[in-house]
Formats: sequence, C-alpha cells, structure tokens
Amino acid sequence: MAVICDISVSLDGFVAGPNQTLEQPLGEGGEGLHEWVVRLKSWRERHGMEGGETGPDAEVVEEGVQRAGATIMGRRMFSSGSGPWEDDPKANGWWGDEPPFRHPVFVLTHHAREPLELGETTFTFVTNGVETALEQARAAAGDKDVQVAGGANVVQQYLGAGLLDALEIHLVPVLLGGGVRLLDELEPSELELDRVVASPTVTHLRYRRA
Amino acid sequence: MAVICDISVSLDGFVAGPNQTLEQPLGEGGEGLHEWVVRLKSWRERHGMEGGETGPDAEVVEEGVQRAGATIMGRRMFSSGSGPWEDDPKANGWWGDEPPFRHPVFVLTHHAREPLELGETTFTFVTNGVETALEQARAAAGDKDVQVAGGANVVQQYLGAGLLDALEIHLVPVLLGGGVRLLDELEPSELELDRVVASPTVTHLRYRRA
Repeated sequence: MAVICDISVSLDGFVAGPNQTLEQPLGEGGEGLHEWVVRLKSWRERHGMEGGETGPDAEVVEEGVQRAGATIMGRRMFSSGSGPWEDDPKANGWWGDEPPFRHPVFVLTHHAREPLELGETTFTFVTNGVETALEQARAAAGDKDVQVAGGANVVQQYLGAGLLDALEIHLVPVLLGGGVRLLDELEPSELELDRVVASPTVTHLRYRRA
Repeated sequence: MAVICDISVSLDGFVAGPNQTLEQPLGEGGEGLHEWVVRLKSWRERHGMEGGETGPDAEVVEEGVQRAGATIMGRRMFSSGSGPWEDDPKANGWWGDEPPFRHPVFVLTHHAREPLELGETTFTFVTNGVETALEQARAAAGDKDVQVAGGANVVQQYLGAGLLDALEIHLVPVLLGGGVRLLDELEPSELELDRVVASPTVTHLRYRRA
C-alpha cells in the first residue's frame, strides 16, 4: 500500500495549458498531454471504449489502474468550478453516469456536501484538509494504493508534506509555453529515480523519496 | 554537424537555484545539478582531474565532448557579470588559464571586446545577436557540432528561433524550489524523444524537433 501520484506533464513542466475554461478545461494545448493515454487499450477499456494499443505504455497505465484502491483529487479537477456547489455547472463532475474510477474518490473542497454515487464510483467531499482526505482514502483503499490524481496544487500539498511515496511523471515532449505548473515553489529536496519506461510519445519517470 | 544543447536541469525545471551570487554562481542548491557529472572520468579528464567513474553517464558526456567543435554561451554563464568588462571581477571567465573547452567559444554580450585566448581555448565576444554567433560557431566547428551551453535565456533564444537540432536534458532528481527555469514562456511546439539513457542519479533525455 503506497500513496502515489502519476500525472502527465509537458516538457516545460505544465499539467494544463494557459486560459482554462469550461469548454477547454485543460487550457490551450492541454489535450496534447493526454493523447498518448487515450490511444491505449488499458485506458479505453476503463472508459468503456473499444480497441486501442497495447505495449509498454499500456502496461504502465494498467498497472496503475489495478493498484489503485482510492483516489484523491481537488475540487477544480472534479468540476473545474469553485464556490458553492449550487452554482457549479459541473457539480456532478466530468465523467457522466459511469465515472471510470470504480473505487472511492475523495474530493478536497471548501464546500461541504453529501457523498455522490455515480455508477460504481462514490465521491466523498472532504472539507478539512489533505491529511484527513488521506486517512479516509487509506482506509478505503485497504491494501491497494491511494492515487493522488491532481490538480497541481493538490499534488504539491501532498509532495510538500512528505506524504507521497512515489511520483510518476509521464513526460510528454511538447512545450505548452504557459499554464499550470506541476512543480512550483516546493521546498528543496532530493528524490530517487525508481523506474524509467520510454516510448516515442511519452517517458514514464517514477521517483521515490530519497 | 548539428546545433545541440545539453544541460542539467532539476526535476522542477531549474538550471540554477535561487539567489545567485559570485560566491555561489549556480544559486542555492545549484551545485547539486552537477554532482553527477563531476564524478565522471570523461568530465574529470577534460578538467585536468584524475580518476572518476565510467559507464553510461560517462559515455553520454564523452560523446558530447568529442562531437563539439564550438561552443556558444551567454555573458552571464561566462563571467556571472553584466555591464562593462572593466567592472567585471570574472572578466576572464570561470575556468582559469586552461579552460576545458579546447575549441572556439562564442560569448553573447552587449559589450564589445577583443578575443581572449586562454590555453587551447579562444573566446570571441559577439555583440550582434544569436544568429551571428551561430554563423561564426558553425564556421569554426567545421563538421563537428555547435554546443549551445547556456544559460537558460540563451538556450530559450535558440530553441525559440528553431535553431536547435537537439536538446538533451540531463534530468536530476532534485527539487530546487526556485531559481532560473530552462523552459519558460516558449512558443507552444512539439518535440520528439530521440534517446533515453537512465541511471539512478540522472536521466539523459534527448529530444529533436518533431
């Protein structure tokens, strides 16, 4: 059981491009960070889609999916919104009636709300901080991993607090030129490279705390 | 013959830490970006030092050294200074009487100056921009590579102008938390991963223009 984050990052360090909107939640060019994954069989199956590629990239993704027993994410990643839920046009999240998680998801928010069940996924809204969310996620995950999904600010909080056991960066060879940085204003520290899997369209770099 | 840049970068994207001074030209923590290379036999030989490690990292460095026929760098990388040369305490650069380049070096500066010969290295000071410096470096390099050494601003100018054939990032698993970013505010673009060499202390990621 480990607390992990795996996330797609541009070569210039962004997890989303500039000018995020409801129509373009990943910002300008941000979709390009995920092209590698939507082509994969292991990702497509999880999202109810047919076909797709197998190979090393697909195995990396499949391993992460199999190991994850609970997910933590920020409110903005859940809905792109902020403020009271009644004003949020995506208050039930981005994933429709059958979200691909199929395990408990904990959403960090300042706005309390009853749990939301959609298909095989229950979203629990946590208002008292990253450590409480992690406690709940650990309990829910059992002997599986807790996946810190994003966004950048949430990853930074877990990384900064020393709570991440592993950080896997899917480094995509594009420059976005601006947007939301994954690693920004963190305390100086050392990590250790644990595994590299490389393909032409993405390099999977897994780090652990040194 | 290619125009290349290879440069050590922290996992959070910095080529130097915060608070650069003459005493600490790489900023706080910046020395940590180069620990991997000063241990290598191929680097130490070039700098007149004995011993050192062999292996994949050393081969990557040796290959770069052998292929480079000319180097381009910015004034700040050359001396850490700015403004008139007579006020610059490091006006003859950082490397003493025997700089390790042993091929022509072109220094981008706003302040004209006669060429400087130190040991087997001649430094030529170029005041009319990156393209002129590249022309001169190409002519000097013959059929060898032109190495764009840094700093970040100079690399950004060559990359942004589409003049770099290859960018090799030596990705070091440390977080510096601040400093000088290598890839900042560049135009959106795509690259292609050309080669990965990984060791526990550094990952060499070589990209080409897509």
